[in-house]
Amino acid sequence: MKPEILKEIINKNDSKIIFLIMDGLGGHPMPGKSKTELEAANIPNLDQLAKEGIAGLLDPVSPGITPGSGPGHLALFGYDPLEFIIGRGILSALGIDFTLTDRDIPARLNFCTVDKNGVITDRRAGRISTDLNRKLCEKIRNHVKLSDNIEFFLETESEHRAVLVLRGDELGGNVHDTDPQKVGEKPRQPKGDDPQSQRTARYVSEFISQVSEILEDEHPANMILARGFAKHELLPTMEERYGLRAIAIAQYPMYRGLARLVNMKVPEKPDTYQAMWQQLEENYNDFDFFFIHFKKTDSYAEDGNFDKKVQTIEEVDRWVRQLTELNPDVIVVTGDHSTPSALKSHSWHPVPVLLRAKYCRPDEVVAFGEKDCLHGAIGRMATKHLIFLALANAQRLKKFGA
Amino acid sequence: MKPEILKEIINKNDSKIIFLIMDGLGGHPMPGKSKTELEAANIPNLDQLAKEGIAGLLDPVSPGITPGSGPGHLALFGYDPLEFIIGRGILSALGIDFTLTDRDIPARLNFCTVDKNGVITDRRAGRISTDLNRKLCEKIRNHVKLSDNIEFFLETESEHRAVLVLRGDELGGNVHDTDPQKVGEKPRQPKGDDPQSQRTARYVSEFISQVSEILEDEHPANMILARGFAKHELLPTMEERYGLRAIAIAQYPMYRGLARLVNMKVPEKPDTYQAMWQQLEENYNDFDFFFIHFKKTDSYAEDGNFDKKVQTIEEVDRWVRQLTELNPDVIVVTGDHSTPSALKSHSWHPVPVLLRAKYCRPDEVVAFGEKDCLHGAIGRMATKHLIFLALANAQRLKKFGA
Repeated sequence: MKPEILKEIINKNDSKIIFLIMDGLGGHPMPGKSKTELEAANIPNLDQLAKEGIAGLLDPVSPGITPGSGPGHLALFGYDPLEFIIGRGILSALGIDFTLTDRDIPARLNFCTVDKNGVITDRRAGRISTDLNRKLCEKIRNHVKLSDNIEFFLETESEHRAVLVLRGDELGGNVHDTDPQKVGEKPRQPKGDDPQSQRTARYVSEFISQVSEILEDEHPANMILARGFAKHELLPTMEERYGLRAIAIAQYPMYRGLARLVNMKVPEKPDTYQAMWQQLEENYNDFDFFFIHFKKTDSYAEDGNFDKKVQTIEEVDRWVRQLTELNPDVIVVTGDHSTPSALKSHSWHPVPVLLRAKYCRPDEVVAFGEKDCLHGAIGRMATKHLIFLALANAQRLKKFGA
Repeated sequence: MKPEILKEIINKNDSKIIFLIMDGLGGHPMPGKSKTELEAANIPNLDQLAKEGIAGLLDPVSPGITPGSGPGHLALFGYDPLEFIIGRGILSALGIDFTLTDRDIPARLNFCTVDKNGVITDRRAGRISTDLNRKLCEKIRNHVKLSDNIEFFLETESEHRAVLVLRGDELGGNVHDTDPQKVGEKPRQPKGDDPQSQRTARYVSEFISQVSEILEDEHPANMILARGFAKHELLPTMEERYGLRAIAIAQYPMYRGLARLVNMKVPEKPDTYQAMWQQLEENYNDFDFFFIHFKKTDSYAEDGNFDKKVQTIEEVDRWVRQLTELNPDVIVVTGDHSTPSALKSHSWHPVPVLLRAKYCRPDEVVAFGEKDCLHGAIGRMATKHLIFLALANAQRLKKFGA
């Protein structure tokens, strides 16, 4: 939907829209079995919503494409993930809860191993411990000094992964990766595509050359590789696009960060599901759109733990009961992508979705599961359309054309 | 999927993907009957694949659009048929197994009838016999001589149809049709849009004026019309786009030619279904993607022969049994378009498809037929996405975005 068309049809009212997102919700039967995690779960409250509402399956990017968390969530927020591409460095910064400013150029760093000629022998430095990573980052922070008062931040992510943020005026983000993505080569020189990015590249060069000396006697982490440089820019906000005052209730940094990208309000981290409920209640009157994110469905599936993913879905189902009592105008339940326990990773499989609203024209689906969703009234749809279906059901969209 | 994004997510492994294409597979019940050709066929092996896998319906171009063989196959190979447009002349040349070079400008020719003032009275010269066409082509080949050593090739297609290929350096392909597409007008002068195409137009003019004299005393085929000029250019290859070493096992020139356009290996024409099987076995270890094309489903349907189309589908089903035993990672069975015997022509109806792979998240479809496919997990999808679903199921796609 083009912004200029959208602007013409947005209608504000006092309706409430809730997006309850279970990360990696879509699943797959384990080998030799027939039910997915969602189908195996005992979820009376979600089944009731599916019965009263409409169901379907969503493609976050397009059929066959496995989405990362960034594209998966942008699509849920109604931003075409093939149009709004978020740099790796920005996602890494969001993932550690680093608050980016518009003077920042973030990048993702890997500690790596190079031989005496500077040729990369291990792009991940043997996956050093997160503890060692922290020590090395501290050492680097204490010794590196960039010219022209350019500030830098270096933060541990996990294992060999860290985040570098350069902060200064007139810095460009179009800097090529120094990571050649293979061993047997030397790290590449940072290279900028335009004058501002060439400035950035110069400071990155300084940074890397000083780090190289500092790490000289370390083993295996004696060098760094940088990739995914990008200038941090806010996206058009959900309020500008949809007229929605939006709030994110999420425990994990990456999702809180993605919500900030579209200018959602992000209150302090809720430690428990109960705290998430309190945040919802406390803010219910002041917002229109509630992005509620549950992470553990994905985490357990990434570990291959089918039963724990099922349990997590059942916990969320119990949480849903009180949500139903709150009676928002539109409830949507879905995921940002599939993560089948059988695959232990994100996957390309379409994601089950349900939407309940007063005028959703219900289908015959009476349970929430992948096979049931095949027969639902939402059909199979690109995730980026979901927000419009929600807005329509909240009667927040006017007629398009006379 | 943009090439630069595709490049980031392609993952090579040793999986095998088979696309078994029955030309014009989709059908329609005959008047007063209830089953399509595919539904009427006894196909235990395809039904078993549908049971183990997922099913759906494909739109080769977009809903309502009847595809030719070119767009139908490009979509199967993952090339958007509305972006990659193949000229009529090129398709005609491919259809007679003419090997085009990058110095060639092919066009489609019709023999036609003109009156004594040069006005077209029949655009198809009464659909002259293919035999007469051959004689006229030979006469023209023996007498026409173009200036500047420009070579030409003139080959009979069938009835009034032939293919002209001009070969030379610096020839452009942007030459307008001389065929006005209606009777009562004179053939148009060939006209080029740019200097190189103006050169081509000059030689086309020479050719037509000499042919006009040669055919002066013939009746009804006393003139020719040319259309669909195009410069022959290879498309980005399947290996460049998907990292797939691809091979085509096909009996008919058009499909062998379409496979060559995307740089598939095309071994010599296999004369029988048994020979097709041998080609598959002989090449199985050296390729990743196998395009296997069966033509007769379409030919019989074009003749309106419902029963013979059913029989052909049953023959292919028997061929499929040994394919299942080969146990490739991904098997896809579909068509390039529908050809209902009831219509005796290509049609706009979506095309049934099945895909079987280890992690395809099976649906509840247990038979391969148009009505069954309505309930399948592939849903209804543009054909151009199919290759990505196959690549995903072969675990040949990495995550998009972090």
